[in-house]
Amino acid sequence: MTVPARFSFNQATAKYWPIPDLVAGCVAAGVPAVGLWREETAAHGLDKTAALVRDAGLAVTSLCRGGFFNTPDWYDENRRAIDEAATLGAPVLVLVSGGLPEGSRDVDAARAHVGEAIGALVPYARDAGVRLAIEPLHPMFCSDRCVVSSLGQALDLAAPYPSETVGVVVDTYHIWWDDQVWAQIDRAGREDRIASFQVADWATPLPEGVLLGRALPGDGCVELRRFRQAVEAAGYQGPIEVEVFNAEVWARPGQEILESTLAGYLAHVD
Amino acid sequence: MTVPARFSFNQATAKYWPIPDLVAGCVAAGVPAVGLWREETAAHGLDKTAALVRDAGLAVTSLCRGGFFNTPDWYDENRRAIDEAATLGAPVLVLVSGGLPEGSRDVDAARAHVGEAIGALVPYARDAGVRLAIEPLHPMFCSDRCVVSSLGQALDLAAPYPSETVGVVVDTYHIWWDDQVWAQIDRAGREDRIASFQVADWATPLPEGVLLGRALPGDGCVELRRFRQAVEAAGYQGPIEVEVFNAEVWARPGQEILESTLAGYLAHVD
Repeated sequence: MTVPARFSFNQATAKYWPIPDLVAGCVAAGVPAVGLWREETAAHGLDKTAALVRDAGLAVTSLCRGGFFNTPDWYDENRRAIDEAATLGAPVLVLVSGGLPEGSRDVDAARAHVGEAIGALVPYARDAGVRLAIEPLHPMFCSDRCVVSSLGQALDLAAPYPSETVGVVVDTYHIWWDDQVWAQIDRAGREDRIASFQVADWATPLPEGVLLGRALPGDGCVELRRFRQAVEAAGYQGPIEVEVFNAEVWARPGQEILESTLAGYLAHVD
Repeated sequence: MTVPARFSFNQATAKYWPIPDLVAGCVAAGVPAVGLWREETAAHGLDKTAALVRDAGLAVTSLCRGGFFNTPDWYDENRRAIDEAATLGAPVLVLVSGGLPEGSRDVDAARAHVGEAIGALVPYARDAGVRLAIEPLHPMFCSDRCVVSSLGQALDLAAPYPSETVGVVVDTYHIWWDDQVWAQIDRAGREDRIASFQVADWATPLPEGVLLGRALPGDGCVELRRFRQAVEAAGYQGPIEVEVFNAEVWARPGQEILESTLAGYLAHVD
């Protein structure tokens, strides 16, 4: 199987694959890049992970994730996340904003706070050479995970800040349903905001809690290739990460998940 | 408890309350109106339900639901639904568009078809004196239940047709997360499209399949009173239906559900 040069395997797709096996498996398969997660890299050791990935010749396309601006220590925690991205050589830190503060119904206030919090992090991110990428999550996560619910809204939040330091994530799973999405992808390109392009498919029924409903490319109803072509038409030529959270996928051996991911990618994205 | 004159109890909130008990319970509680469902009225008998409700002096504020334009017999089925609404004296037939056709990924085509299908039904609805109300459902239902995912999209679909025959449903549960929602409610008022206002609250975690996640007013995070004030500011003075699908609520006796619904309504909507 020839692996396209822009393909990146997000480690969350094989959540239980130990980092050394993930790195060895990607190298053996000819995969050029990975997306990493803070919890997993911390568990393996940040510097150890950075060295392992670097020595293997793998690029790190993004680190998930900062954000959660509804928690009291968001400022320090996000500076740590920026440092970790820099250490790992990840050019992009994905920001998931967090939902409503406990007991709150004020989504406007929560959204305004996200904008201010990002502004507060811009100097630190710029100095670290890490680009902050605001990720709109599907509206079903608005209350408990991310008050940023559409690409248009993410672009509005990014607008006050320099595009080299603040961009957005285009993740097919979260925004495929939006009838404004094609216009907003065009806009994201014009405003030079596409920091990351992530691919997952949408399938139903959704599981309880809905977090683990993401499907491998081709196992759902999203026009994935159309999205790839749209971000490219908007000027994006960066990595294409596949990122799937799915309990049934996670139960399989890491190598097999990687192979299925690549097969789905070649058939439905590339 | 004084029941506000615009309150309407949607029967789906107490799904297992037999229709005669529902009617007697509403009358006893001073509830002036109900929203009805096709399956339940058919099971009890359409004419029998119509007579029962009429003799009890209850108004029927809406019938749920037509739509599902992705099924082969949508045209005849929706004409039957319009007839049933007319028989029940319901001024409004709620339309849930249906999701993607089996195996399809073409959401644009599905949406275009919804617009055409509604157009095909307009003469029949007009002659029957029934207003068609396009309901945007939460985007988590886009693939399998309703490709109309935002109020703005519903208004775009309604736009080609006379507002006295085609309107939209403003349902707090489905649209609360949308940062465009206040502007779109204003627009809906200007364009005279608000045919129905339904209230349910948003709570997490969502159950498997997500359909039964709706919460009674006050049990979630939606600014329900703000929505009521917004539709009123947009000129809407019609009924306010509470419509909740929730397995835990359904397990309780009908009379108790009605009382909880009224209490939540008075505290959080009125």
